[in-house]
Amino acid sequence: MSKGLLIVVSGPSGTGKGTVCSELLSQAQDLAYSISATTRQPRAGEVDGKNYYFMDKADFEKKIAEGGFLEYANVYGNYYGTPLGKIEERLAEGVDILLEIDTQGAINVMEKCPDGLFIFLVPPSLAELERRIRGRGSETEESLQKRMGSARKEIEDGKKYGYVVVNDTVKNAVQRIMAIRTAEHCRMDKNQEIFEELAK
Amino acid sequence: MSKGLLIVVSGPSGTGKGTVCSELLSQAQDLAYSISATTRQPRAGEVDGKNYYFMDKADFEKKIAEGGFLEYANVYGNYYGTPLGKIEERLAEGVDILLEIDTQGAINVMEKCPDGLFIFLVPPSLAELERRIRGRGSETEESLQKRMGSARKEIEDGKKYGYVVVNDTVKNAVQRIMAIRTAEHCRMDKNQEIFEELAK
Repeated sequence: MSKGLLIVVSGPSGTGKGTVCSELLSQAQDLAYSISATTRQPRAGEVDGKNYYFMDKADFEKKIAEGGFLEYANVYGNYYGTPLGKIEERLAEGVDILLEIDTQGAINVMEKCPDGLFIFLVPPSLAELERRIRGRGSETEESLQKRMGSARKEIEDGKKYGYVVVNDTVKNAVQRIMAIRTAEHCRMDKNQEIFEELAK
Repeated sequence: MSKGLLIVVSGPSGTGKGTVCSELLSQAQDLAYSISATTRQPRAGEVDGKNYYFMDKADFEKKIAEGGFLEYANVYGNYYGTPLGKIEERLAEGVDILLEIDTQGAINVMEKCPDGLFIFLVPPSLAELERRIRGRGSETEESLQKRMGSARKEIEDGKKYGYVVVNDTVKNAVQRIMAIRTAEHCRMDKNQEIFEELAK
């Protein structure tokens, strides 16, 4: 049995990663979602091991020291991280894992998992990105400009990814990511066992 | 506009390349088929420039000398070849071109067009390949054994391809090749212009 794929979907904030990944998971029942660990308090209705792995700070820091995270970040005093052990376990079982992550996290994952499939999701244009962020109605003009500045920088980093997918519509973006997943499974280096079988 | 893809579908004889490629062309209207040149006589109903480019031997040999073929072969005294000029023209226009070719031809194309997308179509097993060839009912036991021996050798060469697609059913094989095509168009190195646009 061949190893599963680590499918990393990232992109500038506001591009629509969350919506695209939810739709991907609902269409591909055999695709597993990487559950993050966090030290923040569970919100009403959140379930440990489903929404997050909830951990206390001491355990989280111990796990950091042991190299137990694929990547982690401290956001306003709470830790968030991607537990490495669970991912390696599922990949070894042949399960494909979807990891939705910000661009800084993705760059860290590239270093640790060069075999991963790195997909950079981009808006059709920066004007469209601005329109989408404005559409959320939750930003001041100043924070909007700050986000647009970050997006420009993040797009520079995008060139390090293996694939780029334009999120013109969720349907198109999902279809492209599904195609990339299928194609990766057909790559010669992932199918040596077919040849072993055929050579028998 | 980005360049078109040269999609080369090859595999041991009897694998079902022809059926898969016909189905691909009927599903993907924007995919062009590379028309071969030949010195053999047109059969009833065959149209020059549609089924083949019909050429006389002298012109064909002149074109060989000029390096005008991506690959060519002499089969029972008739030349067959893939004209390079037409393909380069269409690729430059951004059109994807499908080339169905035997494994020897594909190896030659790899040398001349390393940018091509090389897909090796394989039967689910050698037993199934034998069953399919027997099913055609046109082989003697001796020629069947000869073809099975060739298939084993051709499968060895298969490892040089970028992708391997199992032809378990035509529908699955076509879907996988379509996915590989979509994925290739999403590769970072083929999408520099997206970044140029986004950087504006």
